Amino acid sequence: MPELFHVVTADEANARLQSLLTLLDRAEELPLHAALERVLFQDLHAPCDLPAFPRSTMDGFAVRAADTFGASEGLPAYLTLCGEVTMGRQADLRVGSGQAARVHTGGMLPPGSDAVVMVEHTQAVDATMIEVVRPVAVGENMLPVGEDVRAGALLFARGHRLRPQDLGGLAGVGLTTVCVVARPRVALLATGDEVVPADTTPGPGQVRDINSYTLAALTRRVGGEPVLCGIAPDDKATLRRMAVAALATADVLVVSAGSSVSTRDMTAEIIASLGQPGILVHGVAIQPGKPTILAMADGRPVFGLPGNPVSAMAAFELFVAPTLRRLQGAGEALSAVTTARLARNIASKPGREDLVPVRLERRADQLWADPVFGKSNQIYTLARADGIVRVPLDQSGLYADALVEVRLF
Amino acid sequence: MPELFHVVTADEANARLQSLLTLLDRAEELPLHAALERVLFQDLHAPCDLPAFPRSTMDGFAVRAADTFGASEGLPAYLTLCGEVTMGRQADLRVGSGQAARVHTGGMLPPGSDAVVMVEHTQAVDATMIEVVRPVAVGENMLPVGEDVRAGALLFARGHRLRPQDLGGLAGVGLTTVCVVARPRVALLATGDEVVPADTTPGPGQVRDINSYTLAALTRRVGGEPVLCGIAPDDKATLRRMAVAALATADVLVVSAGSSVSTRDMTAEIIASLGQPGILVHGVAIQPGKPTILAMADGRPVFGLPGNPVSAMAAFELFVAPTLRRLQGAGEALSAVTTARLARNIASKPGREDLVPVRLERRADQLWADPVFGKSNQIYTLARADGIVRVPLDQSGLYADALVEVRLF
Repeated sequence: MPELFHVVTADEANARLQSLLTLLDRAEELPLHAALERVLFQDLHAPCDLPAFPRSTMDGFAVRAADTFGASEGLPAYLTLCGEVTMGRQADLRVGSGQAARVHTGGMLPPGSDAVVMVEHTQAVDATMIEVVRPVAVGENMLPVGEDVRAGALLFARGHRLRPQDLGGLAGVGLTTVCVVARPRVALLATGDEVVPADTTPGPGQVRDINSYTLAALTRRVGGEPVLCGIAPDDKATLRRMAVAALATADVLVVSAGSSVSTRDMTAEIIASLGQPGILVHGVAIQPGKPTILAMADGRPVFGLPGNPVSAMAAFELFVAPTLRRLQGAGEALSAVTTARLARNIASKPGREDLVPVRLERRADQLWADPVFGKSNQIYTLARADGIVRVPLDQSGLYADALVEVRLF
Repeated sequence: MPELFHVVTADEANARLQSLLTLLDRAEELPLHAALERVLFQDLHAPCDLPAFPRSTMDGFAVRAADTFGASEGLPAYLTLCGEVTMGRQADLRVGSGQAARVHTGGMLPPGSDAVVMVEHTQAVDATMIEVVRPVAVGENMLPVGEDVRAGALLFARGHRLRPQDLGGLAGVGLTTVCVVARPRVALLATGDEVVPADTTPGPGQVRDINSYTLAALTRRVGGEPVLCGIAPDDKATLRRMAVAALATADVLVVSAGSSVSTRDMTAEIIASLGQPGILVHGVAIQPGKPTILAMADGRPVFGLPGNPVSAMAAFELFVAPTLRRLQGAGEALSAVTTARLARNIASKPGREDLVPVRLERRADQLWADPVFGKSNQIYTLARADGIVRVPLDQSGLYADALVEVRLF
């Protein structure tokens, strides 16, 4: 019998689930070097000014700007050298009126000075005196205290995903450990009497487990920690026992259901029994991925994904990935989506969203998306693709040359 | 004194270095679950057909297509049930003329059959007979042996970076360990009398080490393994000793030179002395990053990056990142670059390439790049940015609304 379910749109399905999610409240304290791509658990404020002292941005001479006003090649200002600031040391001298102190890029400006003259704009007269041939304004060629960031300022808000430059910014103010959101633990349970571990030799009629590998990798991509829970047979008691055990160890459960209707029905029944409120969505207006199940079991999201590898990946991207981001309180990485020009028409039925694998190719200055056609049970359809284009529900297709958003795999 | 060097373009600088690089010849054998984003060391061919047996893609009945020709609601074809194929088992029956066997999605087609009739297009007459109300063609609703991939076919070539779908494809044919290129070891040596470890409290005139954090993270992003070699003082003998030791442990050496001209000169002298042929480029027509040094020391690339955090990151992206990709034999990840529309004019001097940090913002359906102005010694300039736009050498700027390529940090 065909499956009977109330199909909803992908947006509606996500809205139902996302409204019930709360932020993960587990944190980890990590050294900065281990925190790349991790998500901040709390707002971070600057514990000090950066720079902590007035810093020269040039090699040259610290001066009082007023002493250089009007200086030119024809009428230089003459300043007396009062010493040199050693790098990494307190500037233990003072620049008085008519004086100049030698400074290096990154060195401290001595008290009394308020600007730096570049060495290129000076001429040594003798060992004790220089000519300045161009004026400088107050604050020129230097960074005042706190110019980069001020003590107490908000550096990054909770939910910020740490990038290389952010780690540098935290190092600069001495925050060398950070408190990040724990990785959501995602239990992955494959099902199907025909599915065997990938490292065994399948018997007649058997196939190797693919989804545990693709879904574990996608989980890692969005900051989750996959927990591999094996392969359940199409036996209700065993599947239920394994699903309960998997959910007990994790924040999220993802079951890649068998591909036949009867095993999918069994999966739905078991998911419904795992906790309250149970199934929120059974059936989404997408192709592939229609029989996807979204549920909540006592505060933990549970997904029933179709067993076909292409459908499973597409449904993961559409529903599980945003859930994992929401649990971490993080937005989507800019690198997850790109824009390309469609190389060919894509036909689609209105009333459902089509998820079309595309291969990307850079020709001249333009990125082109070329649809890869293939059946959703063929993993190499996706191995030939770089990402997925969503054809909206209300459109009967997309024309060649249209600019499309590509979600990268 | 101003530094005297022969400035070359960024493209010319890269060409000089890249022509001397050879692929890294160290490999690692990894389980598939640990191989995400790693680069293949050798071509991989399929050891078997996928699928290994003819597979149904629907719930229904395996039949001889010829028996259904002409079938319709008004004139159904009557077929005798000869059994059911159990999932994950050998189909130990045979479909003869006028017969049908019940099959499930993903199950094996029995010998004798050459197509599958969807259950929706049948009607049970009694326990032993079905009506078929639509004809099927040979091969319909099934995957023949090797349809996804054929035994012996090239799956992925050397240099391919493994994505989630690729891991799935390898699992599908039983390749659960893969031979990947070892991560290039990148020695990172900071220099400067004023630089102290980020986890210490700087004294007057001292600053915390930022570059070791940003460059280590950028190294990881392109698949390299950072080796932190500490902070060398502005002392020739010590710096040389530390540079030699650092290079001995690594495939690539990156020195983030002090910011003053004198320490940069010293760095250049030491880099020149590390091996043959020595310095290839000293000075690049980019802003920031002009004093960048590219060298080869007895087969190993050596970089002298400017000490300012922004310059160091920009020069790393422009020169070190492509070198690390080349050593691994890998192309650039599609996710490393995106396209955006410029929110404001950017002015630039012709004759040099400007590297402008931009913040990206999605407004309506369009990604906008808004230039972030700030001095190159301010790390928070970059922490407010998401990537960098290159303003070409021969242009005096870019206009607002232009489509630009953004290299994401």
